[in-house]
Formats: sequence, structure tokens, C-alpha cells
Amino acid sequence: MQLVRVLDQESARWGQLEGGTVHFTQGMGGARDGTSAPLGRVTLLAPAEAGKVVCVGRNYLDHIRELGNDTGGLPKEPGIFLKGANTLAEPGGVVEYPAWTENFHFEGELALVIGQRARDLKPDTALAAVLGYTCALDLTARDLQKTDLQWFRAKAADRFCPLGPWLETDLNPTDLRVQTRINGETRQDGRTSHMIFDVVQILVYITRYVTLEPGDVVLTGTPEGVGPLSRGDTVEVEVEGVGVLRTVIG
Amino acid sequence: MQLVRVLDQESARWGQLEGGTVHFTQGMGGARDGTSAPLGRVTLLAPAEAGKVVCVGRNYLDHIRELGNDTGGLPKEPGIFLKGANTLAEPGGVVEYPAWTENFHFEGELALVIGQRARDLKPDTALAAVLGYTCALDLTARDLQKTDLQWFRAKAADRFCPLGPWLETDLNPTDLRVQTRINGETRQDGRTSHMIFDVVQILVYITRYVTLEPGDVVLTGTPEGVGPLSRGDTVEVEVEGVGVLRTVIG
Repeated sequence: MQLVRVLDQESARWGQLEGGTVHFTQGMGGARDGTSAPLGRVTLLAPAEAGKVVCVGRNYLDHIRELGNDTGGLPKEPGIFLKGANTLAEPGGVVEYPAWTENFHFEGELALVIGQRARDLKPDTALAAVLGYTCALDLTARDLQKTDLQWFRAKAADRFCPLGPWLETDLNPTDLRVQTRINGETRQDGRTSHMIFDVVQILVYITRYVTLEPGDVVLTGTPEGVGPLSRGDTVEVEVEGVGVLRTVIG
Repeated sequence: MQLVRVLDQESARWGQLEGGTVHFTQGMGGARDGTSAPLGRVTLLAPAEAGKVVCVGRNYLDHIRELGNDTGGLPKEPGIFLKGANTLAEPGGVVEYPAWTENFHFEGELALVIGQRARDLKPDTALAAVLGYTCALDLTARDLQKTDLQWFRAKAADRFCPLGPWLETDLNPTDLRVQTRINGETRQDGRTSHMIFDVVQILVYITRYVTLEPGDVVLTGTPEGVGPLSRGDTVEVEVEGVGVLRTVIG
């Protein structure tokens, strides 16, 4: 099932997308409320009402190598960093190239949105905390990532996380193709089976330390092929079984 | 004026504290709604409904020196890192010493809570975005701060940010005494006038990159004197003009 969050007459509403029609629901993941609208009459929003966006860095070996970070062998634990809800941007939107970076990078990723409060998850039941899966573009000011104390400007600035176009609830995340295209040219083409830490391991690790709340977003890391963006670029992140997240760099 | 957030018959409510009585308000910073309760009949909560907690690291020169981080001169820009709302803990509460750190440190700080959406603030009007000031205990797993990719476990684990006891709305933050006592013994004793970046500079810097929302919390950095905690310790953070935030390490 595809869950969408849309702007309908200036209100943000959740719904189920079926055959081009949005069947509105009582909140995120709730039951249908009996009203509906054609998809073409509403505007898609990022499918999450996040408190926080919890991200895994360096989760694909080839990506670790391409950034020259393979100095100490494989990571023994997931490397986690945070973005705030201010980073979320809608599918099909425009993200302005920030004036304060000279090396603005794309990173396409599988993301998941939490459906129920999750703390100290166990491996065999961890995926039950996931409401659905979607595509994320983890925008990164690569130059500032190297110079700032922590990855604040580099990762957490406004609109640095386009997300969508919807949540796919019926999906096995273990072996999905993840592609990023720039102006139609494929630049990243990986599979989630190549993650160093898989979705279950990520959820178990995070929730050992941090409680995840409904609506929180988890980004699972990017495969190799990241690179710089230019103004005017169209970025497409495609996750197999979900769809395509399209973003224009303004 | 002192603004409190309290648990009253299992509901979280905001109020104004005056002469030992909580006058409940319509939400955070709102008008009185005509109901009230004695302070002794309610339980204080962290005075913020945060989306994010934005923190400044290395903002007092003596603290930079004590951690051996004064290698490259003074920071040219504030060093910012994030905690999530999962870190907030109530005043007077117990925070368990995590089993996964062997060097759990206290850092007492001046904190502020945002009252209105703030983006690209200008120096002469930045303080108008602040609803009030309070005390924060920025708990830190110092050992993991050195080894992890980013300060996730070190700074952002559940209950790593006791906050309170209330917001003081009428306060000039430029020269306040900030003290931390462990079991009654003073261990940190600084003044906000010794910050490298003052509150206005911090707000202007953060909001150049990140939109702050009502309820978001900003931590302004800790003076020298940080050190390890032991189970059973009582930590008191006192900010002049606010009051005392008391936390027990369990």
C-alpha cells in the first residue's frame, strides 16, 4: 500500500493512494475517513511528520572507499548522525543551491518512516516498528563536512532532505536497487543487500540509545557514486518497489 | 515571568508560576485560561516541546583548553551539534548512568527556548525570538565522543538533556553566572560574558542555515570544569536569574 501526505486546500492530510485517487485517512497510517481526491488535485508533501531524521553514514563499502574513508577497516558499529525536521523537502520540489557551499553533493538512499514508538528493538521484531519505505536525497555540503566541528551545516540545513514520493508499506528492504540519476544519467546504482549494516541492524542499534517516535525518519546510507551538483540539475532517486523522488536544484 | 510546563492529572500543561501557584495558560506562552493549581500539586516537566535541541560546542575558551582542543586558535564560527527531543529530561529527575559509557560527564549551560519561528535572524532583533531562558545539563559520554563518527551516542541518547526548572522570560543573557555543583561542591563557575559567541551571535549563525521552530531549544556551551559523574551523584546547574536544575544520576 502507498501512503501519501498531501496538501489539500492548505491542510496537510494523510491518505492511501490507489488508482490515482487519494483516500484520506485519520492521520498517518490510520483508517480511511470516507473522503478522497484525485492525485492531480493535491500536492505531495514529504511523507513524514518527523521529530528527527536519524542517518547512517558510511554504510556501503564502495562509498567509504570513494571518499577515502577506508583507513581503519570496516566500521564495527553504524556511524550515526542527526538531521532535524527542518531538512525535509517535498517530492518534486526545488532546493536552492546554498550560497555558502562550493561542493553541494547528492546522496540517494533508502529511507524508512517509523510507525510506532520504538526503544530497544529486538532483531526479530524490529521491522514491525516501520510504517513504510521511501526515497531520500541526503544533500551534503561536502566542503563544510570536512571543516566544521560536527556535520551541522553540511547535513542539517533547511531542505537538505527531500523525501518521497510516498511510503510503500509492503516491501522487504533487504535487497532493493537504489539508483540516483542526474539529468537522466545514472550516477549511483547500488543494492541494499550491499549495506554493511542492514535495516534491522540499524534499527536495533539506534534504539539501544535513542527512542524513535512515530513519524521519525531513518536514512540508511548511500552507495558509491556521490558527486557535486550544479544549479539547474534534476536529481532522481529511485528505490526499487517504491518509485522516484525528483528534485530540482535551483 | 516564570513559565512552567507541568504534569497535571496526567496532562502536560503550560502555566505562569507566581507566588507558588501555577496559573495555567493556553499553550506555551499563551494567556491565562482561568484555572490554577498549587506548585506542590503538580510535577515539573522540561519546559520545552522541542523538535530539536541545537547546541554550541567549545564556546568558552577555558573549556576548550581543559579538553586539549585549543590547537588551532579560537573558533572562527560556532561549532554546532544536534540533540533530539528524546534527550529532554524533567527537572528533579533521575538519569540512569548508561551501561555503555565509562566516562559520563556533566556540562552545565544556559539554555534558551524559542517562542516564534526564526529564520535568518538579524542581530538587533534576534532576542525577540526567545521565549525564555533556563538551565541545561548537557550530559556527555566523553569516551564515545572521541571514537564515534559523530556525537550521536555521546550527546544524543535518551534523557541526555535535563532542562529546567522553568523559563525565565525577563532576563538579559549577556552576563549571567553559570554554576554546576556535584553533591554540593562547585565544579563549574563561569559567566556568559565569557562566551566566545554570545546568544545573539549564536542565534544569527544558526538561523542562517536552520529554521528554529517554537519550542526548539538552544544550548549555549559550557564553561570550564566539566568532569566525570558517578552513580548516586546529585548535579545542580544554576543560572543566575533563573534558578537551579537538579538531577540525580541513578
